Amino acid sequence: MARISACILLLGLFASPAVAQEATELQPATETSRFIFTSLLALAAGAGLILLLAGFAAREAGVVRAKNAGASAVKAVALVAVSSLAAWLVGYNLIFSVEAGGFLGDFSVWAPNEEGASAISDAARFLYVALGGAAGAAILAGAVAERIRFWPFLVFTAAYASLVFPIAASWTWGGGYLAAAWKFVDFGGASLVHACGGWAALAGAVIVGPRLARYDGEEPRVQPPSNPGLAAVGGLLIWLGLFAFMAGALPSLSAAADAMALARIFVNAQLAAAAGVVAAIALTEIIYKRPDLNTLINGAIGGLVAISAGPAEPALWQAAIIGAFSGAIVTVTRPLFDRFRIDDAAGVLPAHLLCGIWGALIVPWSNENATYLGQAAGVVVTAAFSLTMSILIWTLLRYTVGLRVSPERELAGLDLRGEAAPKPKM
Amino acid sequence: MARISACILLLGLFASPAVAQEATELQPATETSRFIFTSLLALAAGAGLILLLAGFAAREAGVVRAKNAGASAVKAVALVAVSSLAAWLVGYNLIFSVEAGGFLGDFSVWAPNEEGASAISDAARFLYVALGGAAGAAILAGAVAERIRFWPFLVFTAAYASLVFPIAASWTWGGGYLAAAWKFVDFGGASLVHACGGWAALAGAVIVGPRLARYDGEEPRVQPPSNPGLAAVGGLLIWLGLFAFMAGALPSLSAAADAMALARIFVNAQLAAAAGVVAAIALTEIIYKRPDLNTLINGAIGGLVAISAGPAEPALWQAAIIGAFSGAIVTVTRPLFDRFRIDDAAGVLPAHLLCGIWGALIVPWSNENATYLGQAAGVVVTAAFSLTMSILIWTLLRYTVGLRVSPERELAGLDLRGEAAPKPKM
Amino acid sequence: MARISACILLLGLFASPAVAQEATELQPATETSRFIFTSLLALAAGAGLILLLAGFAAREAGVVRAKNAGASAVKAVALVAVSSLAAWLVGYNLIFSVEAGGFLGDFSVWAPNEEGASAISDAARFLYVALGGAAGAAILAGAVAERIRFWPFLVFTAAYASLVFPIAASWTWGGGYLAAAWKFVDFGGASLVHACGGWAALAGAVIVGPRLARYDGEEPRVQPPSNPGLAAVGGLLIWLGLFAFMAGALPSLSAAADAMALARIFVNAQLAAAAGVVAAIALTEIIYKRPDLNTLINGAIGGLVAISAGPAEPALWQAAIIGAFSGAIVTVTRPLFDRFRIDDAAGVLPAHLLCGIWGALIVPWSNENATYLGQAAGVVVTAAFSLTMSILIWTLLRYTVGLRVSPERELAGLDLRGEAAPKPKM
Repeated sequence: MARISACILLLGLFASPAVAQEATELQPATETSRFIFTSLLALAAGAGLILLLAGFAAREAGVVRAKNAGASAVKAVALVAVSSLAAWLVGYNLIFSVEAGGFLGDFSVWAPNEEGASAISDAARFLYVALGGAAGAAILAGAVAERIRFWPFLVFTAAYASLVFPIAASWTWGGGYLAAAWKFVDFGGASLVHACGGWAALAGAVIVGPRLARYDGEEPRVQPPSNPGLAAVGGLLIWLGLFAFMAGALPSLSAAADAMALARIFVNAQLAAAAGVVAAIALTEIIYKRPDLNTLINGAIGGLVAISAGPAEPALWQAAIIGAFSGAIVTVTRPLFDRFRIDDAAGVLPAHLLCGIWGALIVPWSNENATYLGQAAGVVVTAAFSLTMSILIWTLLRYTVGLRVSPERELAGLDLRGEAAPKPKM
Repeated sequence: MARISACILLLGLFASPAVAQEATELQPATETSRFIFTSLLALAAGAGLILLLAGFAAREAGVVRAKNAGASAVKAVALVAVSSLAAWLVGYNLIFSVEAGGFLGDFSVWAPNEEGASAISDAARFLYVALGGAAGAAILAGAVAERIRFWPFLVFTAAYASLVFPIAASWTWGGGYLAAAWKFVDFGGASLVHACGGWAALAGAVIVGPRLARYDGEEPRVQPPSNPGLAAVGGLLIWLGLFAFMAGALPSLSAAADAMALARIFVNAQLAAAAGVVAAIALTEIIYKRPDLNTLINGAIGGLVAISAGPAEPALWQAAIIGAFSGAIVTVTRPLFDRFRIDDAAGVLPAHLLCGIWGALIVPWSNENATYLGQAAGVVVTAAFSLTMSILIWTLLRYTVGLRVSPERELAGLDLRGEAAPKPKM
Repeated sequence: MARISACILLLGLFASPAVAQEATELQPATETSRFIFTSLLALAAGAGLILLLAGFAAREAGVVRAKNAGASAVKAVALVAVSSLAAWLVGYNLIFSVEAGGFLGDFSVWAPNEEGASAISDAARFLYVALGGAAGAAILAGAVAERIRFWPFLVFTAAYASLVFPIAASWTWGGGYLAAAWKFVDFGGASLVHACGGWAALAGAVIVGPRLARYDGEEPRVQPPSNPGLAAVGGLLIWLGLFAFMAGALPSLSAAADAMALARIFVNAQLAAAAGVVAAIALTEIIYKRPDLNTLINGAIGGLVAISAGPAEPALWQAAIIGAFSGAIVTVTRPLFDRFRIDDAAGVLPAHLLCGIWGALIVPWSNENATYLGQAAGVVVTAAFSLTMSILIWTLLRYTVGLRVSPERELAGLDLRGEAAPKPKM
């Protein structure tokens, strides 16, 4: 019996840590199962990002004038392709090859490395990051819509997805100097995706110049969405897509705590988006005496963008306040851009640029790991880098190949010529 | 060797139950892994419900006249936000704080409680339930489209998502008296979401009154969908979204039996939807001599709504019959509403109200745990409660702030004024 | 102490294989957990296929003329229903009841069999396969759009989803003679779904005949997409849906290697799609001097279709080349169809038919298990079978009930008559 007792004791010694782990952490808590579930989450998030990009396509095409919807649609499909190839050939490797605390990774073409004992499939992370970079390009597509030429836009997109976004992202997500020296926190890309893309979009809107006749009168000439139903669907797909964006940023999925964090992220995101919409409704009522579809959509996007900087930590009421403030930002600032004759055709700057900045700055309110100084540093550095690079590239394009369609083409509509296939011009 | 034998025996005693469990139930069958996978399922279902709401937006905007599509789009985005905040501030807590067999929970604001040994993340369930409440609001948005004012609609939505849906749901999903005393079964909300929302929509359509000129002639004045492609996409997104609705109602995801139940639910739902469409095609051919897009979409939705009351139990042929009967309901009853001058602008009542009732009543055909009497009790109680509350709120709104836009505005189209931002009316 | 040592040794003997398995294969690697995760993957893929079908609806309705968008929308919803019922009543059982190496399964109605020790829930696989069959019908819907009558289309769809696709699929996916004797590899249906549906579409386009006035002038009469934003959303939903199609074809999800394979499939698919778009952009620029939305969308679809034949094996650069070649195919061949007066209204043949063939033929480049001869055999057999059956059925329909709407109806638009419900013609 003594021998058996010894065995029981021994079994207990071996078994109890495992049992304790099960109770608090879940069965599939081995490194391998962590790898699997985290990878599957990134793949699901990547699939969700395609919905995000479909949402951007629907929103821009639904908001611009019907005569330009085809040009917006073409850009929306093309930018996904160009960004993905840019991520493969240059961008992805730049992000994750930067040395800890460093400034620049290497430019070699990415080849998937799944053999190592990493926490996630390298290919799954690539898909997520490549489509995340495309989201930045989709933002700027909206700002320069209705007058940009197709090829210069593609070249900018390629440069943006190869260099601008990846280098900015490497400093935080890749463990570069913003993460190391400034403890800059940007969980879901409020600054690194949305503000970074927003700065590029701002530079583009200014350098391309406003649409013809936009500012001819005392008031900017405006038009209602050409396809409001499509725009609303786009807004809700972006809503869902930004959930996916945050889900894919979860570093690990294996323990009960991870599932709870994901649920908390989604709920905070939902309340931020909802509060953003409600604030936008209330303020448009006060200021303009009527609801405005694009401002409502921007309220939701603004709330989601802002909360994405640190979605897991805020209390529910904090998430709602962050979102409500975002809704106020998008409503109040929209006319300011027009005052400075910055013609943001699809209205993307208030939500992506301003709420991206706001979200990154407010992280320390609920997250002890971040400081206001560090966040400000991250925001300023991202802004300076994205703006400098973007001005350089846009200006280069402007004075070489030119950025705008001809005035005749712009007035007639960018879609004038219909289906290409049957009339080769060779 | 005897000692070693004893150890082997002992190991066998400890190990064999675990092995047996693995063979029949799956490795992650601990309470913790059950928590994780059930929570992840609810989160995925919540994401799917955003697609459902995008589907409602697309369908309504695609079906109404182009001059009102913008107003429908604005409502479709706003109701998601208002319903989510209502669920947080009042609704969600009401559902799940009701005591067993009771009538009313408490009205305190929900704060997530994830510490307890519950079967699912409270936050994940909140997301699912909040978006489920929004689905009810989306139903009624369709019935009152093309003439309702924006703000009264928002107030009704807030009241509906705060009180009407949650109290009705608490009686069944929260373990209140319908579940306790009547064994009322409504797995996926056929009565609690669709019929409950449908009654509110019916009350709204009657109290708001028909669209101008709708019933001026001998026949109701009708118009084709303004954007049929968008409506079809909406129908298919609703199709997918109702799959998500049923998936999120699964109480637990951990065993092989759970995966099989989920697969069976999806297949039954698919066959019910398919049979609903085919029945609608056949009957529209017989009655009207031509297919009708909105009736086909309603055939699918009707089948999905009906089967959702108890999707796991029916045999495949039973699911198909339940769906086919739903398709017949939506086709045959559509003119009846017009006969009584109930102007259901987007045609939501046949599928959501009538098929919701039909689905709840037919549950006992395949589910031994439900009785026809209990189901009838649940349907009648839900109807009485939703209708009473809705009539009260709609009437209150009608005689205080008013429900309809002006006749001039209605004739000109609700979208008349375009983008708000550049013309502040302060 | 000796006794304890013995126990430790013993524990070590029992524990070490388990630990080794964990390290390389993941905790949930029992047969049961494999069953669960593989089934959940098929269910998620099935849900994704509904997005694919929504994408086809959006793309076709967005590309055809506005006067025919409603007819396309009706077909897009109806075909999902008809295909699902056909899969239940005939098709699904045909695929998986074929004996190894055989030619024909049995025609009995499918009843789910989940008791056996299979690797996946039979119901989950049914959902995936039934919706996969619907995808084939969605392809051919595009080719015959704008002039086909509704009922003959439905009958063809029923026949296609009952017999043509299932018998062709049984020879490979069901383990029939193409798999057994020719080792034909078609992982995600490049030949079995896309080329098979493409042949049926080609037969349909020829037998139905071109749209009126299409080839009256020297050049085919073309029109731009009526709703380019919707078409772009459709293209991106198809993009996502084809990811789901490949995911659902994964035979097992349980080990780390499975997650890595899935990630690799998605990345290869993304690069193939991206390269397809970029090649299409470059070639349309060279040939037509301007971008064309539908050709870009076809570039993405073509790349995805081609890679789906064997998406896990190619190196990234191989995937990109397969995709780029697909983009070239869709651009260069589009006018060829018109030269032969094959009027493919929505432009589906280049991407689905030709890239499906191309993808199946190129599999051996990266997959040692396939041979060029075997692949050619699979492609030729699928072509011969689909074409023979389709010509038979289309011709039968043409000379009995007729296939086309009247010329007056075609000129006026297929959607002429609006909502059916209020005017019964009984």
